[in-house]
Amino acid sequence: MTTQTLVNNILKTSYADIPRNVLEHAKKSILNWIGVSIGAAYEPSVDMVLDLKKDLNSSEQVSVFGRSEKVDMLLATLTNGMASHIFDFDDTHLDTIHHPSGPVAPVVFALSEWYELDTTEALKAFVVGCEVELRISNAVYPSHYDLGWHITSTAGVFGAATAAGLLLKLDEGQMLQALGIAGTQSSGLREMFGTMTKPFHPGKAAQNGLLAAMLAKKGFTSSEQVLEAKRGFASVLSPDYDLNRVNENWGSQWELLKNAFKPYACGIVLHPSIDACIQLRDYAEPEDVKEIQVTVNPYVLELTGKKEPQTGLEAKFSIYHSGTVGFLERSAGEIQYKDEKVLDPAIVAFRSKIKPFVNKDLKEDEAIGKIILNNGNEYTVKIEHATGSIENPMTKSQLVNKFNTLAEPIIGADKVVDIIDKIDHFESLSTVNEIISLCTGENVLA
Amino acid sequence: MTTQTLVNNILKTSYADIPRNVLEHAKKSILNWIGVSIGAAYEPSVDMVLDLKKDLNSSEQVSVFGRSEKVDMLLATLTNGMASHIFDFDDTHLDTIHHPSGPVAPVVFALSEWYELDTTEALKAFVVGCEVELRISNAVYPSHYDLGWHITSTAGVFGAATAAGLLLKLDEGQMLQALGIAGTQSSGLREMFGTMTKPFHPGKAAQNGLLAAMLAKKGFTSSEQVLEAKRGFASVLSPDYDLNRVNENWGSQWELLKNAFKPYACGIVLHPSIDACIQLRDYAEPEDVKEIQVTVNPYVLELTGKKEPQTGLEAKFSIYHSGTVGFLERSAGEIQYKDEKVLDPAIVAFRSKIKPFVNKDLKEDEAIGKIILNNGNEYTVKIEHATGSIENPMTKSQLVNKFNTLAEPIIGADKVVDIIDKIDHFESLSTVNEIISLCTGENVLA
Repeated sequence: MTTQTLVNNILKTSYADIPRNVLEHAKKSILNWIGVSIGAAYEPSVDMVLDLKKDLNSSEQVSVFGRSEKVDMLLATLTNGMASHIFDFDDTHLDTIHHPSGPVAPVVFALSEWYELDTTEALKAFVVGCEVELRISNAVYPSHYDLGWHITSTAGVFGAATAAGLLLKLDEGQMLQALGIAGTQSSGLREMFGTMTKPFHPGKAAQNGLLAAMLAKKGFTSSEQVLEAKRGFASVLSPDYDLNRVNENWGSQWELLKNAFKPYACGIVLHPSIDACIQLRDYAEPEDVKEIQVTVNPYVLELTGKKEPQTGLEAKFSIYHSGTVGFLERSAGEIQYKDEKVLDPAIVAFRSKIKPFVNKDLKEDEAIGKIILNNGNEYTVKIEHATGSIENPMTKSQLVNKFNTLAEPIIGADKVVDIIDKIDHFESLSTVNEIISLCTGENVLA
Repeated sequence: MTTQTLVNNILKTSYADIPRNVLEHAKKSILNWIGVSIGAAYEPSVDMVLDLKKDLNSSEQVSVFGRSEKVDMLLATLTNGMASHIFDFDDTHLDTIHHPSGPVAPVVFALSEWYELDTTEALKAFVVGCEVELRISNAVYPSHYDLGWHITSTAGVFGAATAAGLLLKLDEGQMLQALGIAGTQSSGLREMFGTMTKPFHPGKAAQNGLLAAMLAKKGFTSSEQVLEAKRGFASVLSPDYDLNRVNENWGSQWELLKNAFKPYACGIVLHPSIDACIQLRDYAEPEDVKEIQVTVNPYVLELTGKKEPQTGLEAKFSIYHSGTVGFLERSAGEIQYKDEKVLDPAIVAFRSKIKPFVNKDLKEDEAIGKIILNNGNEYTVKIEHATGSIENPMTKSQLVNKFNTLAEPIIGADKVVDIIDKIDHFESLSTVNEIISLCTGENVLA
């Protein structure tokens, strides 16, 4: 009965049932998602996927974030869902390493744009879609992830179908079928990590979920117990699972509140070290620095010990580069991991001043930074929870700053200010299109 | 190295390397596939999928078998792949219960039509695509299937990507990427059996495989070891596997030769009983029959003991109905399982003359039929291998007859004759379009 109960929960949830803090967190998630999507809009893999439009003579229907092209809804969900995960800079439900907005937001925006939907409808579909995928992730994590499934897409397809189903106004029977059609498309292997196919996964989950709901609306039939059946999702894709997690405390506990935002465009294990180096900048100018000692858990250094990174991707696994940009630029956004930046002589020269040490008594989300100046002075900072953790979430102004950094080079400062303002007042806009129309346009720096 | 070796094998195989008997078997497979696709062209689920064209404003690009609509290549592969599996009357690789044409043929036809490709290119792509998916199925069967995966789609996506990759002329690196992008989309749960979503699976495998090859052609990156990696296809989707099966005896052993065709539109366990009843018809007219005793393995009767079927789907699990149509109509095609036929008074009345018996010494593919006439005469026939088994394959004329029965009501007799003739001379046609153009058109009986 897991699937049936879930559908009952999905359909009984009204906009008014969603607490204020959940709606506000949803709006932060949307702001963050739009930022990372626009920021990656001109990455090569986005060009490749959009090139399918030519191959298929497909129609101009809805927007691609950050670009001027319109494409049909299925291609748009694939493209936007993929773009948002390219920098690995999107949101994270830390309990399950699931990035919830990737599969759900593209569906909400595609349908809202094409059918000119209300903002409250869209916001509810986003929240409920995220709840569904995250609760399913809770039910199968960690054994499902450990086996090799990319949980963002395998569970995400259910969130995408749910959001699409709500916006397409499926009835109970149709919503059951939609989850079945979605679940049988569940896929995405962790073997693809490190390639363009990793971000392709949430895009495909968005696309498959939308397709599922569109077909269910037409009467397409499927299983009504995709989650719990003997040959259904949980049993086939997960060595262990607890399906109680799917529906327990529905309406009183909101998984979306555990959704965190990354301040830095690299693996989360480097974040405490970057925080430390940014804080140390208050004590000295670069030319006064003799060395900066960064002490971390041994596992952190094992993952991030790349001494002489040559590319942005390598630099994301380098405590030397990440500490350097944190100190010199007080930032570690996508710009700090561009290839040019990694090869910049001033950055390369400073890297040798970063001296990592390990201490197994430190947790993975802790770091100690100690700066030693040429004049012999020393200062020490301790990071107990990195910025962006549940205990120390990014502030609204940090999120706005991240959004600016990502979106401004692509769509320009004016639109960026407008988008931030409109997301603040999301519920009072007449349609979602008031925002979407600002999120597109030629690369202003191109 | 499994994936790399497979790509080497795929790319080194020339048309001239394919033995004559394999090419002939491929042409039979294609004839059978076109027949089951055209036959199901007006089923409700096909209407639903084609209705997506309206939702997406998608383009008129290539044909839907049996219909007048054209749709874009991705939607065409989904539609045609699905249609071909709706009657569960398509081909079967008996070793793995994999239906090989479903995921591969739609890709071959879509690309051949749009790019006006040569018939030899198309035939090679079909053969090599089928080899790839069937060898991958061999490697993971039976544990993969037993766990709950619909092997036709999970392994089929590799065949689809291979065929598409050959027709799009991918180089070695691109073909590796294509298999990676395909494998990460591998999906399809057996929980969906008995619903419209079961035939949706091979359609989706075709569509996903085509998408994979199209993206790989543009430079999209993926894993180069999707089959053998720790978090790759075999390890994640199959409790046990033997990857040696993928490449062993490549070029000397052809899995496609083990592809069988079903003479009757029901589960394979009923086929020996139907064969027996058809043979018994030579001994009597219906009005002379007192009873027909059909003796089968106990497991067969367990699956097919439905005494009073009310629908076509129920009749496919009824030895009473199946024996009756075999005797009265010397046939058990899709027409014999229409709802009207199942409720026809003459059929219903005769059903009580069919008396099943069990004998555990009979194998599942054996049956004994004994007819007792009103005048006391008795005749007995023994079926040792049902028609359509590897030991007793359908003859060319039986296949042609099956094709007629499926396609003629939809596209008319003239086109049917032409198609059969052109498939006979497939290699000497100028393009595949000479056949495709005959496979479309309004339902002549509509």
